[in-house]
Amino acid sequence: MSRLSEETQEQPEVAARLLEQVRPRLGDLGALLRSRGTRQVLLVARGSSDNAARYAQYLWQAVAGVPVALATPSLTTVYGRAPDLADHAVVAISQSGRSPDVVAVVEEARAAGRPTLAVTNDPGSPLARAAEQVLDLDAGPERSVAATKTYTASLLAVALLSVALEEGGPSGRRARDLDRVPDALRAAVAGSTGLEEAAALLVGHDRGVCVGRGLHLSTAHETALKLTELTGSLVAPYSPADLMHGPVGAVGPGVPTVLVAPPEQATASVLEIVPDLLRRGAPVVLVGADEVPAGCLPVGLPPEAALPGWLTPLTAVVPGQLLARRVAELRGVDVDRPGDLSKVTLTR
Amino acid sequence: MSRLSEETQEQPEVAARLLEQVRPRLGDLGALLRSRGTRQVLLVARGSSDNAARYAQYLWQAVAGVPVALATPSLTTVYGRAPDLADHAVVAISQSGRSPDVVAVVEEARAAGRPTLAVTNDPGSPLARAAEQVLDLDAGPERSVAATKTYTASLLAVALLSVALEEGGPSGRRARDLDRVPDALRAAVAGSTGLEEAAALLVGHDRGVCVGRGLHLSTAHETALKLTELTGSLVAPYSPADLMHGPVGAVGPGVPTVLVAPPEQATASVLEIVPDLLRRGAPVVLVGADEVPAGCLPVGLPPEAALPGWLTPLTAVVPGQLLARRVAELRGVDVDRPGDLSKVTLTR
Repeated sequence: MSRLSEETQEQPEVAARLLEQVRPRLGDLGALLRSRGTRQVLLVARGSSDNAARYAQYLWQAVAGVPVALATPSLTTVYGRAPDLADHAVVAISQSGRSPDVVAVVEEARAAGRPTLAVTNDPGSPLARAAEQVLDLDAGPERSVAATKTYTASLLAVALLSVALEEGGPSGRRARDLDRVPDALRAAVAGSTGLEEAAALLVGHDRGVCVGRGLHLSTAHETALKLTELTGSLVAPYSPADLMHGPVGAVGPGVPTVLVAPPEQATASVLEIVPDLLRRGAPVVLVGADEVPAGCLPVGLPPEAALPGWLTPLTAVVPGQLLARRVAELRGVDVDRPGDLSKVTLTR
Repeated sequence: MSRLSEETQEQPEVAARLLEQVRPRLGDLGALLRSRGTRQVLLVARGSSDNAARYAQYLWQAVAGVPVALATPSLTTVYGRAPDLADHAVVAISQSGRSPDVVAVVEEARAAGRPTLAVTNDPGSPLARAAEQVLDLDAGPERSVAATKTYTASLLAVALLSVALEEGGPSGRRARDLDRVPDALRAAVAGSTGLEEAAALLVGHDRGVCVGRGLHLSTAHETALKLTELTGSLVAPYSPADLMHGPVGAVGPGVPTVLVAPPEQATASVLEIVPDLLRRGAPVVLVGADEVPAGCLPVGLPPEAALPGWLTPLTAVVPGQLLARRVAELRGVDVDRPGDLSKVTLTR
């Protein structure tokens, strides 16, 4: 079995362990992220971790009303002009904890006396040392190049922190929702449907687009990234609005479209574009949808994978992980080391 | 002659007119964007205008130190939870002024008493009516689907506003730099080089990537958008860090790479990835570079198009506009109405 397969299957146990470890710390973590006059959060991340940060950007604003921005590290590393972070907390997400640009932003914020939190799978990393507190993903070593278990662990960390950030303190309802995540992940990993048909479609094309909105802009970006890095196809992620503002002109029979459409508030505006895509002759794959319009190819999640809307990014990415691996296998790719990539990317 | 050609050629005169009209208002616009306790700016835009907003995000932070975030309109239109904008000014950029989601964010901010500014080519649009003040691009009607003159006009508006936002008031030097923009644009439109060779390369491929960083992340996104909407090729934009964190695995002989590399601070880290791209066998097109490493295909700007680094996004996008049009022509596309697109996209 490939390491990628093993790591994909470990996701439920990683989630269960993370819940157990972090839940007792929610009060302290919430206090850190509200300390020293903090009124907003700056997120800094790269690659898959940046996709987890997209989830945080929407979830924390929607749940806690706290303004959340994604950092532009080159301001610090290229232009030497770090933004004024007078009322920000900085949360960095990095599996390896070794991206120099991510570390630089945290060091700058900590030197300015702002609260800093590192979400990482390596508590001994430079990032962990730079930050005031560490949320250890404790996912075990991830040795395949494509992130799977550290991605869903990062999403779960984001979900836990949203409970910590809730106004008036953690509510019982959302905290209880989290308990359902490990079983839902187990069901998603074991029981996603329609993968062979969708893989047979995608293996016949070398490009595509992936669409999601709101909380699932993260899923669209991560699914596109998995498909691109594992299969060698070039798959570009868009929100429906961004796709319809021009790029849709390139969509047609040769460009499969993968739409992230689980039961969640933003899904209606993803489904709105289906008629236009079908009219252009594009193959349409719908991921996680409850109802599948005529002409679309479903990639489904089993009923046991159902979660409240705000947690659906944790399961909706799993079919994308499995689909990307299957297409890669059909192409004869070494899925643990695809595309001559290395696991840690040292960007400045 | 196509409308697209006409509108591309109008860019210098549009810029000259905009400079003349907006320069006397810089004091007032700066005062608006600092009024009522404003400490940071939220930008809201879609499509090409969103790419102009990326320029603003870097430039205003680098020049004025003001934190700048890009809005996530679905928080308002889908989740009903607009962010807390207690110390924000909101700047919306929209050629048509008719994107309902952009208008919604401005209406919400204005209702909350925050300063709002609409940068638009239609001063009678719903967006212009919603905002407290309007910066009219006055670019004349843009009838081809692909934005050209309204894009560079939006960039110039962003550059003007950066002078308005400067700490200690507008400096003479940067204000004078702006005077050089119309002539530089004229030179770029008339004298960009290497277009035929690069078009001959790109017309043989139906996918590609476009890379830029910092101030030129905007140029990379806009060049990718022009190539995608005009030619039917799928071209995905990345920062060098985002490309190297996975998607580069899909890059090879069948995936041309277009690197935005004019003389500017962030260009060094774009050029750093050239050896990796060449090693993968990818064709590399360098846009606007002073020096061209062996093995790369140059698309150049004439010496008369030179501008100070902070203004290079105004000219560096022009070769991309011309290149996309040329590839489209070679493919027999109706460049004024490519890909069955309409000019105004009403996303919510």
